[in-house]
Amino acid sequence: MEISLEERFALQDLMTAYCYAIDDLSDINDLLDLFTEDAVLDFSDIGLRAMHGKPVFREFYENVFQDMSHHTHYLTNFRVESFDGGSATTYAYAQGLGLAKDGVETHVHVRYRMECVKTEAGWRCSRYEILTGMPMPPSLEEMHGDH
Amino acid sequence: MEISLEERFALQDLMTAYCYAIDDLSDINDLLDLFTEDAVLDFSDIGLRAMHGKPVFREFYENVFQDMSHHTHYLTNFRVESFDGGSATTYAYAQGLGLAKDGVETHVHVRYRMECVKTEAGWRCSRYEILTGMPMPPSLEEMHGDH
Amino acid sequence: MEISLEERFALQDLMTAYCYAIDDLSDINDLLDLFTEDAVLDFSDIGLRAMHGKPVFREFYENVFQDMSHHTHYLTNFRVESFDGGSATTYAYAQGLGLAKDGVETHVHVRYRMECVKTEAGWRCSRYEILTGMPMPPSLEEMHGDH
Repeated sequence: MEISLEERFALQDLMTAYCYAIDDLSDINDLLDLFTEDAVLDFSDIGLRAMHGKPVFREFYENVFQDMSHHTHYLTNFRVESFDGGSATTYAYAQGLGLAKDGVETHVHVRYRMECVKTEAGWRCSRYEILTGMPMPPSLEEMHGDH
Repeated sequence: MEISLEERFALQDLMTAYCYAIDDLSDINDLLDLFTEDAVLDFSDIGLRAMHGKPVFREFYENVFQDMSHHTHYLTNFRVESFDGGSATTYAYAQGLGLAKDGVETHVHVRYRMECVKTEAGWRCSRYEILTGMPMPPSLEEMHGDH
Repeated sequence: MEISLEERFALQDLMTAYCYAIDDLSDINDLLDLFTEDAVLDFSDIGLRAMHGKPVFREFYENVFQDMSHHTHYLTNFRVESFDGGSATTYAYAQGLGLAKDGVETHVHVRYRMECVKTEAGWRCSRYEILTGMPMPPSLEEMHGDH
């Protein structure tokens, strides 16, 4: 696999932008713009849902933005798993902290996997999976399980 | 905003160097050399002080170095917010752990924002802000509040 | 010290690959392939052993893989300390979480230091040290001390 450093860091920036958008908890469109219209978000490995298409996961994130008071997602160990010029698969570790408005706190240790496509507007994510790092705490289900 | 990868990583290295210097807890000049003489350090968002000019924040860090036994600051999610060749603004997430000589421990989740200027000796920080990530624990005020 | 970005990230990728391999807990050869045959692994600074040569540390890691249920090692603050074309020394911060099959949990804050040599197959580690970041918890000795 040959990939230029420019493309590697454009792909890393896409994943980092997801962390900024999910942590900012203000403009849902900043978050949704990172994904293709038909993107699939599969969080089933950590006990949440799989969601097909932007209308479905828009509603999920609207609920998250409404429920949460503080978010922090630390991204490390980024790497490109595959790249063919127009598409790529990326992987990283993420440590996610959340404080809900009702006072529930959570701290999860997960992995992110993104399938990405290069569009005229730059790289976008077409499939996003959250995978188990350390066993999930019960607070995750309590926080997001009903969405 | 156009920025070369070389400049991007020179700017990231400046912020990383801050973490190494504040965690090394040995040579205060390694830390102070990263800043311009008239730099402003604004920690008011996390409940500490704003400090104008190196003589003021030198004293702050001398107290920190004297008080602390162990420091660890993990930097992630680095990005360049603006860049015009001679100046830049950078942003990252930081997870900071501290153990004071009196046994007090703290663990904070913050953001770093640095305004940087390019000098003949390389990039230096002219304004450094620590911003709230997750709500601050009471141990932070207990540890650094009197400086 | 002059180093190209390509070499810098090849060296960072070697350290990241160590994290992936130690966290995957499946194929011990993925892990061992990152080291030279005569590599020295010195974990004495954190209260564990120093090990000389692949046969010795292979046995150590076989025991780790057998004992552990989950592993997560977050790498940050990477930097190249020295580089001369054919060899390099790298340094980073690591946050390591472990859950053993017997239920013991640990969470350590350490530094990684790697001496690396460039081979025909790419960069390999010839000396790997784990250094204290924050004081070690008693659970580390309990988990790995008998290996």
